[in-house]
Amino acid sequence: MKDAVKLIKVKEDIQADNDLLARRLRESLRERKTFLINLMSSPGAGKTSLLLQTTTHLRDTFQMAVIEADIDSSVDAERIADSGITAIQLQTDGFCHLDVPMVQQGLRNLDVDSLDLIFIENVGNLVCPAEFDTGAALDVMILSVPEGDDKPLKYPLMFSKCHALIINKTDYLETPLTDFDLELLEKRVRKLNKDIEIFPLSARTGAGIKAWNNWLSRKVSEHNS
Amino acid sequence: MKDAVKLIKVKEDIQADNDLLARRLRESLRERKTFLINLMSSPGAGKTSLLLQTTTHLRDTFQMAVIEADIDSSVDAERIADSGITAIQLQTDGFCHLDVPMVQQGLRNLDVDSLDLIFIENVGNLVCPAEFDTGAALDVMILSVPEGDDKPLKYPLMFSKCHALIINKTDYLETPLTDFDLELLEKRVRKLNKDIEIFPLSARTGAGIKAWNNWLSRKVSEHNS
Repeated sequence: MKDAVKLIKVKEDIQADNDLLARRLRESLRERKTFLINLMSSPGAGKTSLLLQTTTHLRDTFQMAVIEADIDSSVDAERIADSGITAIQLQTDGFCHLDVPMVQQGLRNLDVDSLDLIFIENVGNLVCPAEFDTGAALDVMILSVPEGDDKPLKYPLMFSKCHALIINKTDYLETPLTDFDLELLEKRVRKLNKDIEIFPLSARTGAGIKAWNNWLSRKVSEHNS
Repeated sequence: MKDAVKLIKVKEDIQADNDLLARRLRESLRERKTFLINLMSSPGAGKTSLLLQTTTHLRDTFQMAVIEADIDSSVDAERIADSGITAIQLQTDGFCHLDVPMVQQGLRNLDVDSLDLIFIENVGNLVCPAEFDTGAALDVMILSVPEGDDKPLKYPLMFSKCHALIINKTDYLETPLTDFDLELLEKRVRKLNKDIEIFPLSARTGAGIKAWNNWLSRKVSEHNS
């Protein structure tokens, strides 16, 4: 592991009342004018690629940092740190999601008051992270086109609880490899969550990324003002 | 839901000694000459598509059935049942993996002694299913090309415990959309599990499916003889 990345091994505090802790953390970060965003997806949907695109576009506007959660390894945090953004790697040691005590371990290793925007990259998993409030002001899910348009039918809680849905890898829509139906997907998602914001984009090519970045910037500015 | 699909709501028996139950189930199925295979992957990696390809190719050789696990919905079981293969849908009601008591609920709804081969399609999740022995004779993982070649670094337990790895969606390798390196992936996997069998294939086009089907047939025949 590279020196630039700080590594913390976390253990879940099973006694804590996670929901209460989440509400407190959210309030405290609002007072401190720091926006925390919780990014969730399946393995390989493109969380880190999206983070690289977004932090590159917003680096002149906001002071940012990233808390990376992985069961093992620190490859994602290294990619972020290589781009010049502070990255903390949380190794969850087999745990399948983050809870507030784990997030707080990450925050304690950041200069929170100097930061406008902190991203959590949750464990790649559509099931368990949906069940645990992290204390973030915003929950965002990434679904990638190759995963298929039937995912809202199978993982309804994740789609129900998120404020925004990013549909990544839209460049795959132009190939004959997938029969992903964007319209059908949106219909299925709206049935679970009528107010969700939806951003189709390609973190690889950058197509569509501007609408997402602009929306996020507005949310951060509103929260921190 | 269609009539062809039987629906069972399962609850986890948290008291059970899952490992002991798994060993007993494995022994019992060996005596009964029924081969149980546990199929695991991320959401959208292609478990159901692979099952459709494999059961189509092996339907003249073996009597087969499929136990589908999903948090919600029965779309996968319906696809299988439409192809003429018996399918049982287990709804895990939020649970992120299958354990032996859940599998046994599925088996009780099948005429096990008349079956040569039963597939479990586990919950789409690379974390929790890796931690629970289902009693299957064979654990198989599907990784799809769009997920990326770094997954063994992030989900080592899943790659370590499986007897075979199917690399699905190899048709994506021919596009400029992915930088997936098959050789690098294999190197990373072998570091965790040197004896694992690896089958690159496309469940969509059928390319590479024969090698997998032949290997599986041999395993089933050896087990049931």
